[in-house]
Amino acid sequence: MPIRVLVTGGTFDKQYNELAGTLTFGETHVEQVLERGRCRLDVAVQVLMMMDSLEMQEEHRARIVAAARTCAERQVVITHGTDTMVETARALAASVQDKTIVLTGAMVPFAFGSSDGLFNLGSALSFVQVLPAGVYVAMNGRWFAWDDVRKNRELGVFESIRGA
Amino acid sequence: MPIRVLVTGGTFDKQYNELAGTLTFGETHVEQVLERGRCRLDVAVQVLMMMDSLEMQEEHRARIVAAARTCAERQVVITHGTDTMVETARALAASVQDKTIVLTGAMVPFAFGSSDGLFNLGSALSFVQVLPAGVYVAMNGRWFAWDDVRKNRELGVFESIRGA
Amino acid sequence: MPIRVLVTGGTFDKQYNELAGTLTFGETHVEQVLERGRCRLDVAVQVLMMMDSLEMQEEHRARIVAAARTCAERQVVITHGTDTMVETARALAASVQDKTIVLTGAMVPFAFGSSDGLFNLGSALSFVQVLPAGVYVAMNGRWFAWDDVRKNRELGVFESIRGA
Amino acid sequence: MPIRVLVTGGTFDKQYNELAGTLTFGETHVEQVLERGRCRLDVAVQVLMMMDSLEMQEEHRARIVAAARTCAERQVVITHGTDTMVETARALAASVQDKTIVLTGAMVPFAFGSSDGLFNLGSALSFVQVLPAGVYVAMNGRWFAWDDVRKNRELGVFESIRGA
Repeated sequence: MPIRVLVTGGTFDKQYNELAGTLTFGETHVEQVLERGRCRLDVAVQVLMMMDSLEMQEEHRARIVAAARTCAERQVVITHGTDTMVETARALAASVQDKTIVLTGAMVPFAFGSSDGLFNLGSALSFVQVLPAGVYVAMNGRWFAWDDVRKNRELGVFESIRGA
Repeated sequence: MPIRVLVTGGTFDKQYNELAGTLTFGETHVEQVLERGRCRLDVAVQVLMMMDSLEMQEEHRARIVAAARTCAERQVVITHGTDTMVETARALAASVQDKTIVLTGAMVPFAFGSSDGLFNLGSALSFVQVLPAGVYVAMNGRWFAWDDVRKNRELGVFESIRGA
Repeated sequence: MPIRVLVTGGTFDKQYNELAGTLTFGETHVEQVLERGRCRLDVAVQVLMMMDSLEMQEEHRARIVAAARTCAERQVVITHGTDTMVETARALAASVQDKTIVLTGAMVPFAFGSSDGLFNLGSALSFVQVLPAGVYVAMNGRWFAWDDVRKNRELGVFESIRGA
Repeated sequence: MPIRVLVTGGTFDKQYNELAGTLTFGETHVEQVLERGRCRLDVAVQVLMMMDSLEMQEEHRARIVAAARTCAERQVVITHGTDTMVETARALAASVQDKTIVLTGAMVPFAFGSSDGLFNLGSALSFVQVLPAGVYVAMNGRWFAWDDVRKNRELGVFESIRGA
């Protein structure tokens, strides 16, 4: 059964614009990541938007929810900026019940050498195959239920709200 | 609950010896991979051996099996050369019943830029947390039961024996 | 005879701050670059400042000029932001006559995989050993006299003012 | 005036064959290196052979000498394995008088992350533009006349025979 990968941008897909000297979005790197990982899963990559998750409005979340709900696949991975990943997870949980949805992202752009993006996508694609229906965040090698996760901005890591 | 990572070498950990111009083993790169992935799992890394899996003898497999059986953790990831990974999986399945054991490796050394090692370790560490007790191989983003997997040497990928 | 390397920052030394999601300065990467290049030159690295060259004021240029003039070495390489590299070259030419000074930089931070920094520093360190006394810019594998060079901002390359 | 780059292989161009698990030659990486360095020199790249310099026979050196002698350019860079680079330099010096020829190579393949190849090619392309006619080796940021250089195999660096 194929897996749907919805791309929304985030640090994962940022790249360096050498003319402007700034971080910007271009094409997604998800296919490159899958190739690097010699991934042999049946994956359908769909780019919904390329944006910083701090700039996401309600309408953007509505589009993500709609795409996750209406796609044929029952396993969905979403690449997303880390800053509001939990907020989008909540919106998904309110609207999609019968699918396994895993959100992931990166602290460092894949385009830079030291990115966690390859690790995280390997992790998210694995969790989505085995976790029961529900909405999850996969970061730092861990998985979190959508209602038990927050980003610790001081440390740059995700953690359980209830501890552990 | 912590995860035990048993290191046995394999392509994953090979590196370039610039004086000899050959591929050799030095220290394991597993800690570096975990750091790159910003991994926050409670992981105990144990180096059992650093060798090419084509050179493994029965005694080496016995040591791997013993380490997996006697460690306190119930979730065990083993980094291993891809050539005889399936053989070691079989040996583990014959001797360890009550743990989730996931073998993984890499087609390209982590020390080289284009390695799948980061993806694969992210994948293996995820599967080991969610799959029921049993022995598995995690490669190419997929998981395989120990008795339904083979390495396709022409393509350099792992596949199910029974298809799909 | 040793070579003085004066570090002033610029894109060359920018790095990604994963907590803030921004490009910032930390320690210089020049030593790392020299190590990567297996450089065996007698090099004295001195960090003068770590700044974007667009933010350089007259006082900063005065400090660079003073350091280049007063150091014992007769061969000086300066890492510098590309945007005002030519301006600093002009200031140096007005004040230092008897040394070979080569300014270089990068279009992409060394910390990112795809940087030209390693190539450029290899180039600058080579030119400084063989060019006669004078002030030069070394970028794109080429060398330019300080009064015959400009940055082409559309292309992100340096070119001769008089052509060719 | 254009620069001729003659490619002969060596560690510089080795790559990892992930099916065989060995180091082999494929296409040259020289164009990639030039692109990475944002090189804007007028360079004509010509692949003569792709081989380990330990396996070079007299006929191979004869082909290198012929190519360097007969090409229209007066500035020639040769990428070469480090083990017999000095031997080829000697053969060139015996037959080509009126050109500047710079041999360079790498201790680590460019295809691997930690290569010195980018630094070395930046260095060689710079020296070739400024050094007078003659045959030179450019390694470790330094240049050596063909008759005053040897590879120190214990350290993996090039050094002057007469010291310094």
